[in-house]
Amino acid sequence: MSWVETELREQPTALERFLAAETAHATEIARGLIRDDIRYLLIVSRGSSSNVARYLQYLFGTANRLTVAFATPSLYTVYDAPPNLDAASVIAISQSGASPDVVAVLEEARRQGRPTLAITNDSRSPLAEAADWVLPLHAGEERAVAATKTYLNSIAAVALLSTTALGDADRLRTLRSSPEAVARQIDLALPVAPELTRYNDVESGTVVTRGVNYGTAFEIALKIRELSGAPFEAFSSADLLHGPIAALKPGRPAIVITRSGRTLDSMRAAIDKIRERGAEIIAISNDADFLASAQTAFPLVPDLPGWLAPLLTVVPGQVAAVELAKLRGADIDSPTGLTKITRTR
Amino acid sequence: MSWVETELREQPTALERFLAAETAHATEIARGLIRDDIRYLLIVSRGSSSNVARYLQYLFGTANRLTVAFATPSLYTVYDAPPNLDAASVIAISQSGASPDVVAVLEEARRQGRPTLAITNDSRSPLAEAADWVLPLHAGEERAVAATKTYLNSIAAVALLSTTALGDADRLRTLRSSPEAVARQIDLALPVAPELTRYNDVESGTVVTRGVNYGTAFEIALKIRELSGAPFEAFSSADLLHGPIAALKPGRPAIVITRSGRTLDSMRAAIDKIRERGAEIIAISNDADFLASAQTAFPLVPDLPGWLAPLLTVVPGQVAAVELAKLRGADIDSPTGLTKITRTR
Repeated sequence: MSWVETELREQPTALERFLAAETAHATEIARGLIRDDIRYLLIVSRGSSSNVARYLQYLFGTANRLTVAFATPSLYTVYDAPPNLDAASVIAISQSGASPDVVAVLEEARRQGRPTLAITNDSRSPLAEAADWVLPLHAGEERAVAATKTYLNSIAAVALLSTTALGDADRLRTLRSSPEAVARQIDLALPVAPELTRYNDVESGTVVTRGVNYGTAFEIALKIRELSGAPFEAFSSADLLHGPIAALKPGRPAIVITRSGRTLDSMRAAIDKIRERGAEIIAISNDADFLASAQTAFPLVPDLPGWLAPLLTVVPGQVAAVELAKLRGADIDSPTGLTKITRTR
Repeated sequence: MSWVETELREQPTALERFLAAETAHATEIARGLIRDDIRYLLIVSRGSSSNVARYLQYLFGTANRLTVAFATPSLYTVYDAPPNLDAASVIAISQSGASPDVVAVLEEARRQGRPTLAITNDSRSPLAEAADWVLPLHAGEERAVAATKTYLNSIAAVALLSTTALGDADRLRTLRSSPEAVARQIDLALPVAPELTRYNDVESGTVVTRGVNYGTAFEIALKIRELSGAPFEAFSSADLLHGPIAALKPGRPAIVITRSGRTLDSMRAAIDKIRERGAEIIAISNDADFLASAQTAFPLVPDLPGWLAPLLTVVPGQVAAVELAKLRGADIDSPTGLTKITRTR
């Protein structure tokens, strides 16, 4: 079995390890980071970690009622003109903790006296050294270039921070139950993989969602692209209608992530457009009717509420990315042109 | 001639009209919006206007030293859980001013007592009515579905706000000279269009840059996609190295936007990777060596400094989008599946 498939299956164990080790620590970090005088969070990240940052934006927006901004590292490194960060707490998310541009933003934040946190899988990385607090991911060594368990644990780290900042015991209990739910989700997704054989000649596609799974859509698109080289792209269903829908057509499947209820309702117009334009739908959903209407159906286990859905929704995407790459004969552990640690300035 | 080509050529006139009409007014708006107690700007937008928002993020970051966050409208409309906007000024950018989700964010900001501005081409739109201040774009009626002059005037509106907030007379003079520079840029770009015939069978591609032209890369990718249906995508050169580079290959040209100096230096590694992977380069640049090394060269007129480059760099992209669409026999004034005013909730 490839490393990426092995690590995909290790996710529940890695998640359990992180939650067991860091719950008390996260409570302490949240106290220092989410203070009354903080008006917004600034997040710095690259690659898969930027998809985690999108989850953070939705979760801290809806649950903690905080605005979340994303740093543009070139202001700090290329232009040497960093903005004033008064009233911000700054969070860096990086599996390796090694990219100099991400480190540069955190260092500048510290220079300005802002509270800083590094969420990383390497507690001895330059990023960890630059931060006031470090939340270690405990994912263990990740050998595949494409992140799976470090991504999932980063999502959990964000959920844990939000929950401990709220001091909500019910939500914490639900989060602590997530490793079992992820294990069930993996078991439910793997048997669907053979159905993707119908997409063996697919050259490109889209991933569409709205709301809290927005980052998941980007992560699935990135995973497919990294593993197979097929350019899949992510859109919010609303943004899709404002222009990019022109790229939908037969032969370019659309992976649609949606839970029942308000999110699905808000996506109806986009889903109709996708169908109108003849693109096949690969559904990742807990909605029986929507699943039945799709060409390929990845059901979601019902165990977790919407705010934790991103721990589940990415799994079918990881499974699909592996399968599409195999169909194309790609070397999934060493994708062309990629390295595990990317250092950009 | 198509509407989009006519309007592309009208851009210098429309830009001149906007700057003449709104400079004094923008000074007054900037005074109300960029106050000492403001810690960050929150921007709400969709489609091409979101590409303008990316320019705003770089310009206000480097010149005005303000952090810029992008609103996620679903927090306001789908989840009904808007964040606390204390310390923010809120700017909506929308050509039509008609999209309910964009209006909803501005209305919530006003409910929270925050200063609000609408940048729009329709001063009587619902968005204009919801805002404390309105900065009208004076682009005139835009008939083509694909935005050209409303996009350029929105970029100018952002530059004007930043400049008047700084009270910098030199920068204002430079900005006021931009319509002539844009006219020269159009004259310089149009004759290059026939060289794009070599890309008549191109199915997809990328647009790569770093820094202040980041939004331009997204706008060019969107324009190509809207007009011809070919999925072009935009990346920062740094993000490209963190994963998506797997999608670069022969037959997928890369449009690379870069000015001489620090930006070009910071992009060298990505440019080498693009070449290594066999993708042809369409250069939009003022750097003679880089232009000479590219398969297709769109030179930039030397008239404007870096912070105003986005007024120029988009023009070759607009010209390329029109040409690529014609090569594919697309109806460029009525792209399949799109409408001029998109209303999402």
